Amino acid sequence: MLGIDPGLVNLGWGIIEADRGRMRHVQNGTCHSGTGTLAERLLRLHAALSEVIERHAPETAAVEQTFVNKDAVATLKLGQARAIALLVPAQFGLDVGEYAPNKVKKCVVGVGHADKTQVQHMVKMQLPGVSLASPDAADALAVAICHAFYMRAPVPRVAGGAA
Amino acid sequence: MLGIDPGLVNLGWGIIEADRGRMRHVQNGTCHSGTGTLAERLLRLHAALSEVIERHAPETAAVEQTFVNKDAVATLKLGQARAIALLVPAQFGLDVGEYAPNKVKKCVVGVGHADKTQVQHMVKMQLPGVSLASPDAADALAVAICHAFYMRAPVPRVAGGAA
Repeated sequence: MLGIDPGLVNLGWGIIEADRGRMRHVQNGTCHSGTGTLAERLLRLHAALSEVIERHAPETAAVEQTFVNKDAVATLKLGQARAIALLVPAQFGLDVGEYAPNKVKKCVVGVGHADKTQVQHMVKMQLPGVSLASPDAADALAVAICHAFYMRAPVPRVAGGAA
Repeated sequence: MLGIDPGLVNLGWGIIEADRGRMRHVQNGTCHSGTGTLAERLLRLHAALSEVIERHAPETAAVEQTFVNKDAVATLKLGQARAIALLVPAQFGLDVGEYAPNKVKKCVVGVGHADKTQVQHMVKMQLPGVSLASPDAADALAVAICHAFYMRAPVPRVAGGAA
């Protein structure tokens, strides 16, 4: 399962295997858009993310749904990066989940508001032995962990859970 | 030469041929993202725009650079559509120009601020016999006209023009 933290400069990705609640880290990394025109940079992100999916053949993907930003230019850039993050897995026929940042944090840390250090700490706890390529890759692994959680329990437990 | 007016719901495109200042309309249309998840909609836009480029094999492309919007959610959507508009031509090896809306209007209408009706009127004037598929397709043709103009005169005329 592939988690993606979209960014136009650095796009983090992380792959885990999940089997009935047991998670194992596979690989994580960062795609860099580099320099050049916006078209060239998007092309580079597209190629790099495609290569990740070709190499690891994940069965499903999830993207962090960050979008609210007061700065219109930054929001536009984020939208462009997010388009690549959503498009590439879809081109490989994967379903693409989306999770709001506070949902990811709640899943990984237990609360909706947590700083990056705390998220990284908990990602390391839940994926023993992991070496984090970058803060963006750590966030991507957190998205993958969150996706694994919701894939395992797609239907809300209606009753009996509070016994 | 391909002009694109990016939008997440409707993405306008227009193709013209330009030869030493003479322009001829080839085709214009609108790609619809339809319904479904965002990933599915981006995939649909990507496929539709790829088909346009495969069919018409334009030598160059240009995208309207609209981005300032007070509404963050709308800006994010626009960013996603623009990513597709920039990515697809780049994947086909085309250079992709970008023009601000007021530059496009100034080129087609003569002033930087003009309403849609006026742009459509001038597109029709400059491409006799054209049938406009949609307002977005008209904007896309305006971008192509602008691109044709700047491709013809890439270097600013430094002297002698005001005689």
